Amino acid sequence: MTLNVGVIGVGMIGQDHIRRLTQVLAGVRVAALTDVDLDRAKNIAGGLPDAQVHDNGHDLIGADGVDAVLVASSGPTHEEYVLACIEAGKQVFCEKPLATTREACERIIDAEVAAGRRLTMVGFMRRYDDGYRDMREVVASGAIGAPLLFHSAHRNPSVPDAVTSAGMVVDTCVHDVDTARFLLGTEVAAIQVAKPRRSSRAAEHLQDPLVLLLEMTDGALVTVEAAVNIGYGYDIRGEIVGESGTVALAESNRVVVKRDGAFGGRVPADWRERFVRAYDVELQAWVDAAAGGSSTGPSAWDGYAATVVCDAGVEALESGRRVEVTLRDRPGLYGVDRPW
Amino acid sequence: MTLNVGVIGVGMIGQDHIRRLTQVLAGVRVAALTDVDLDRAKNIAGGLPDAQVHDNGHDLIGADGVDAVLVASSGPTHEEYVLACIEAGKQVFCEKPLATTREACERIIDAEVAAGRRLTMVGFMRRYDDGYRDMREVVASGAIGAPLLFHSAHRNPSVPDAVTSAGMVVDTCVHDVDTARFLLGTEVAAIQVAKPRRSSRAAEHLQDPLVLLLEMTDGALVTVEAAVNIGYGYDIRGEIVGESGTVALAESNRVVVKRDGAFGGRVPADWRERFVRAYDVELQAWVDAAAGGSSTGPSAWDGYAATVVCDAGVEALESGRRVEVTLRDRPGLYGVDRPW
Amino acid sequence: MTLNVGVIGVGMIGQDHIRRLTQVLAGVRVAALTDVDLDRAKNIAGGLPDAQVHDNGHDLIGADGVDAVLVASSGPTHEEYVLACIEAGKQVFCEKPLATTREACERIIDAEVAAGRRLTMVGFMRRYDDGYRDMREVVASGAIGAPLLFHSAHRNPSVPDAVTSAGMVVDTCVHDVDTARFLLGTEVAAIQVAKPRRSSRAAEHLQDPLVLLLEMTDGALVTVEAAVNIGYGYDIRGEIVGESGTVALAESNRVVVKRDGAFGGRVPADWRERFVRAYDVELQAWVDAAAGGSSTGPSAWDGYAATVVCDAGVEALESGRRVEVTLRDRPGLYGVDRPW
Amino acid sequence: MTLNVGVIGVGMIGQDHIRRLTQVLAGVRVAALTDVDLDRAKNIAGGLPDAQVHDNGHDLIGADGVDAVLVASSGPTHEEYVLACIEAGKQVFCEKPLATTREACERIIDAEVAAGRRLTMVGFMRRYDDGYRDMREVVASGAIGAPLLFHSAHRNPSVPDAVTSAGMVVDTCVHDVDTARFLLGTEVAAIQVAKPRRSSRAAEHLQDPLVLLLEMTDGALVTVEAAVNIGYGYDIRGEIVGESGTVALAESNRVVVKRDGAFGGRVPADWRERFVRAYDVELQAWVDAAAGGSSTGPSAWDGYAATVVCDAGVEALESGRRVEVTLRDRPGLYGVDRPW
Repeated sequence: MTLNVGVIGVGMIGQDHIRRLTQVLAGVRVAALTDVDLDRAKNIAGGLPDAQVHDNGHDLIGADGVDAVLVASSGPTHEEYVLACIEAGKQVFCEKPLATTREACERIIDAEVAAGRRLTMVGFMRRYDDGYRDMREVVASGAIGAPLLFHSAHRNPSVPDAVTSAGMVVDTCVHDVDTARFLLGTEVAAIQVAKPRRSSRAAEHLQDPLVLLLEMTDGALVTVEAAVNIGYGYDIRGEIVGESGTVALAESNRVVVKRDGAFGGRVPADWRERFVRAYDVELQAWVDAAAGGSSTGPSAWDGYAATVVCDAGVEALESGRRVEVTLRDRPGLYGVDRPW
Repeated sequence: MTLNVGVIGVGMIGQDHIRRLTQVLAGVRVAALTDVDLDRAKNIAGGLPDAQVHDNGHDLIGADGVDAVLVASSGPTHEEYVLACIEAGKQVFCEKPLATTREACERIIDAEVAAGRRLTMVGFMRRYDDGYRDMREVVASGAIGAPLLFHSAHRNPSVPDAVTSAGMVVDTCVHDVDTARFLLGTEVAAIQVAKPRRSSRAAEHLQDPLVLLLEMTDGALVTVEAAVNIGYGYDIRGEIVGESGTVALAESNRVVVKRDGAFGGRVPADWRERFVRAYDVELQAWVDAAAGGSSTGPSAWDGYAATVVCDAGVEALESGRRVEVTLRDRPGLYGVDRPW
Repeated sequence: MTLNVGVIGVGMIGQDHIRRLTQVLAGVRVAALTDVDLDRAKNIAGGLPDAQVHDNGHDLIGADGVDAVLVASSGPTHEEYVLACIEAGKQVFCEKPLATTREACERIIDAEVAAGRRLTMVGFMRRYDDGYRDMREVVASGAIGAPLLFHSAHRNPSVPDAVTSAGMVVDTCVHDVDTARFLLGTEVAAIQVAKPRRSSRAAEHLQDPLVLLLEMTDGALVTVEAAVNIGYGYDIRGEIVGESGTVALAESNRVVVKRDGAFGGRVPADWRERFVRAYDVELQAWVDAAAGGSSTGPSAWDGYAATVVCDAGVEALESGRRVEVTLRDRPGLYGVDRPW
Repeated sequence: MTLNVGVIGVGMIGQDHIRRLTQVLAGVRVAALTDVDLDRAKNIAGGLPDAQVHDNGHDLIGADGVDAVLVASSGPTHEEYVLACIEAGKQVFCEKPLATTREACERIIDAEVAAGRRLTMVGFMRRYDDGYRDMREVVASGAIGAPLLFHSAHRNPSVPDAVTSAGMVVDTCVHDVDTARFLLGTEVAAIQVAKPRRSSRAAEHLQDPLVLLLEMTDGALVTVEAAVNIGYGYDIRGEIVGESGTVALAESNRVVVKRDGAFGGRVPADWRERFVRAYDVELQAWVDAAAGGSSTGPSAWDGYAATVVCDAGVEALESGRRVEVTLRDRPGLYGVDRPW
């Protein structure tokens, strides 16, 4: 059967998902869409066969022809749409963040728990990257012993002027936070933020780079380097140090060129190049699960934990102090993540 | 629009393509199928919504509900089905070989030329592998100067007893032959086959490994190592030596593990692991082109050239001599391949 | 001319230096030796042509036939021998540490400053490792912009039971401290020590691994991972993150082996394998300088700074707090280290 | 004891060896030297303590103060000096070639056999390169099974106009020939030379690149690529394909730099950078053996075999045909080389 998906929000990321749903993935069609800018929605619908434009997200969610919903609107609107989907009993794929406050996330969790089943998947696409999946498998296999450290580096060539230091924690490092939870299978217990010498390539107001220290509940330590004006490329690095070995992301180049006294490979130019496959695999996984009437992937709990940790990270950034992270009890609905 | 594909031949490779068409690719459905074993065809159709089983390939090709045809039957049957598709004016994707004799390939070319347009794509999936595509792009960019040499290595962990030395040339090295033509943009002018010391892991009757020397029409030289009982994995290597630099396939590992006194990455276990993406990309390219009423990818000319070169390779293997390769004139329909 | 060297202390490291001076290096001979265990000294002298055994270090330093002195006795004795060499106006190569207390180091600095010339070289052999030298050269070339971060990892397969957590800072991480100063060209301003989950492979009393954060005087941040029971090998990693690029130590393997589904290279088994060349180059540099009447390499100031930083590191380890590092004013005698 | 070495020939390579003997190696001094250009010899002797200049090689060989001889004069003079050393019972290190004709090499072998002991070492320094030694060790360990193929590539950035195509075989590929013999432990049975499309960077008269096929006596096949105007660097590649695995030279870079959209390492600029250590280790091995009254390293037999194979290579180059290689019976004096 073909899954009929409604898309809320057709900005850059929404449009990219529409392209994916129509030109790349199997078993799915875009049946409906809406946007805060209705003209934009109508314009995009014009290029799609049989996609209906709704006046707003709630109408779309309620429409008969919509089997499942993809939320790609602005962060502050996520909560209401996700709650409406849960209410309507429809599977929802929500781009990160799940919601912008701890409380909003908790309301979503409460609603899902009340519904008695998972309906929400959050867009942490790194969990679908072959590299991170292989890392997790190596840890789970026991090949390197119990993990003690995870070194993560998140390097962007540059960021717009609008990006703030707090934004680096909440919007950039959130991926490293989720990756740490995914790879290590434990929660973050405390966070500290170090502020190295600033890059002269960064905007005046920006503390770039940052180094985060995350203490996990079992004592494993995570170092996160965020450098968002590194110029040379989009470079995502990660290494887990276990008791008797390590596993690290390999470079992603496909060819090695030798010329001019050197050999080497390409560093990805941006997140699209690096993670294009992860986005495809992620959304196909959601489509397949939703079409089969089940849920998969990063849960509302994962969205909640990431939001709480990043909020603590902002506090640590601003105060210069170590900040403890406390989470509510984990509902049974959300299982356990340990890879081993 | 959705492309309705009919599949002729539902053995291992045919079934894999059906999985791909139904569960992975966008814009396509399997509308019809047939097989020399009709029970098998019916059995597989049972798992597909609305796929009709035809008594034979010709009925399937002629059926109204079939927009395009995928031929995955045994090699000797390819010619008649491809010719029937051309006759019917339907796009056809034909697994390699295009046909098993030079003459059969020429009849297909004649038919296409008479039809005045390309209708055939041959399944040389390496042309859709990211590594080879990057290699070609590097050559085309001029970064390494004009290509002088191409070193190709084709290593299989093992092969069934039924594989013969001639089969190593025709079924294994055919990929290296096509890759050489794709990367260098010229034709093969002569071929020679060296017979090194045999591997004790190979069957008694098998000359394994083989080393082929291909002379291209512009003088570029290609060395092909084929070792099909190498045990350690499925390892496809390639390096082009240009006048001022080289480009080589990188390893395909995604993580690096350190343990037990060593660091390293994984070698693919088999062709599925190594080329799964290339198969997906290849077939999506065909689906997109066919749905748009056009053709793409390796042509009947490419299928013809590969068959002629491999036949010469078998003669060279058996005679121990250098064998010249002569091709008919290339019809204008098939353009020129030079990557630069 | 041949440099006549006297060796004080002929334990494991002293014997290794004697082997180096007699069998590997040019322009030098071992003319004299002594040890707290005189029988051991006599025994070793028996295998050397014309090496005289002295009753104690002071006699050896004063002997006419001794041009220069190598101190490889136990740490607490270093100060007196180095001071005696300065007094005698003889070049001295002192294994690390220069001395075991800040005050002792300062007395050596005072003596050298009073003497008006450098006579002391401290055995920080990593400065003579090709990898670190290339890193420094890359930084100095400006190729990666101003350095912002340095990630260092120091992994030992195992350590004897006698090693303590404080010892990990003072004896192991001291190399990372010196390397940071060498590569970044600035001093350490503060140090903090994080205590991750302990490895089950470590002795009960040991906090292994450790993660150190060093803040340099210009704000650059250094992360040091010390894991001394990692099992898989002796693995020294380092990466400098500059404003527009990075430079990292490559693996030191010389061949890549493919077998059993994997490819990979060797990780050094121990520090001898990893740094054998650095020791040779280091000592040849000292011999050449001493024979020419001049001094080179890591100075008394470098020995002093390393001792002060590591002492602060032990305080940080024990207190759990960030500890500031203050150094006396740097005498003009010791120049400036900045690589750019 | 110190080995007193006499050097015959103080051109570029002779001077480099003198630097090595005086400034790098242990246990040796340059006691005497001579050259076809006596003024040059005197000039160089002026920079050495106590080095005596002799009128000619024979006087030097006969001098009492000369324990062993290093021959670095022009190729055609090698035979007479090596024979004189054997006559005098003095160990001789002879730069390649041992001699310029098969017959001359045979006369040296006859003289050594008559003398009843090895006195000659030939300067095939690759045998002392860590990479090749590790390759040989891997083969000998059985880790990759019996070797079937060896792919060797020899790439120079450029060569002087004086270099001829025959010279590429005799002076360049001779290293690959010796390496093949060293790694595989068998002799060359036949040789064939393919002439690919010429590089536009090569001089008009030069057939560059060349591809050699060597058939070893046990059937193992060796492919040698020689490209001597490759521009990008001095790049020596090698991979042995065994029955169940492979071993290849790793890149020799010490750091990895990331900048400008790429990561990578350095390719050596020339043979000095790539093999400087091999030269040091090679000559120290000879010094140590000679000082101990014994011989080591590549023998007169190795020099003979290399000369015979390269002569056959020139015939194969010129005739375009496969040329068989026949060697005289191997005297027992020269043992057997098989690494496993």
